[in-house]
Amino acid sequence: MTDLTDMRINLPEVLAAVTAEFDRYEKALVTNDVDTLDDFFWHSEHALRYGVGENLYGFDAIAAFRAGRPANNLARERFNTVITTFGENMAVANTEFRREGTTKTGRQSQTWCRFADGWHIVSAHVSLLSS
Amino acid sequence: MTDLTDMRINLPEVLAAVTAEFDRYEKALVTNDVDTLDDFFWHSEHALRYGVGENLYGFDAIAAFRAGRPANNLARERFNTVITTFGENMAVANTEFRREGTTKTGRQSQTWCRFADGWHIVSAHVSLLSS
Repeated sequence: MTDLTDMRINLPEVLAAVTAEFDRYEKALVTNDVDTLDDFFWHSEHALRYGVGENLYGFDAIAAFRAGRPANNLARERFNTVITTFGENMAVANTEFRREGTTKTGRQSQTWCRFADGWHIVSAHVSLLSS
Repeated sequence: MTDLTDMRINLPEVLAAVTAEFDRYEKALVTNDVDTLDDFFWHSEHALRYGVGENLYGFDAIAAFRAGRPANNLARERFNTVITTFGENMAVANTEFRREGTTKTGRQSQTWCRFADGWHIVSAHVSLLSS
C-alpha cells in the first residue's frame, strides 16, 4: 500500500489548482458551454451524475443530457462553497446555490480526481434542499 | 507531484475493502447504530454532509444530527449501487434507494478516503429525486 503520509489536507498549490478548475466549471455552467462542461467530466463509463431530476450513469449519458438541456435560466448565486483536497490527486467540492428568481436552495457536490491529462469530475450530485 | 500511475481504477482489493465498509455503513444506518455511523465519518471540521433536509458542516454538526434523529422508518431498499475506487486511498460510492412505504427515489453519494486509521467518509450528499 502507498504511504499514507501523502494524505495531506488542503496543500496550498493543490487547493489553488482545484479552486481554479471549479471556477472554470461554474463559468461554463452558467454560460451553457457544453463542450467545456463535457471536458470537465471524466470520460469513463464509471462517471456518474445525479442531477435534480435525473440519474446519469457513464460519460455518454451525462454528455447527452448536457446536449439536450435548455440554455436559459442558468444564472445562479453560490454560497457556502467548501473545497477540500486530499493529497495531490483527489478533492471534493461542495456548494450551495440559488437560481435567479427562485427561493429554493440547491446543493452541488463533486468529487474531482487528477489524471495524467488533468483534473476531472468523477462523480457529481445536485439536488434541492427539501423543506 | 506523485506518480499518477497510482490512479488505478477499481483495484480488486481496494474495491473489496470499500464495498465491505459501505455494507457495514448501510447496516449501521438502518439499525440507527449512531456510534458506528459516527466512526465512519471523518472526524474533521472539513467533513460535510448534505442531507435530504439539512446541510451539515463539520463532524460535530453531523454527529449532533445523528444523535437527534428519530430511529424509526429507516429500512430501505438499495439499487443501482456503484462503487468506484481510485488508486489505493480514495473511492466514491453512489446508490439509489427507496424507503419502505414510500414511492420516492433517494440518491446517496459518498466520497471515501483511507487514512492511517482506515476508511472514512469525507463528504456525503443524500437527496430525493425531483419528479
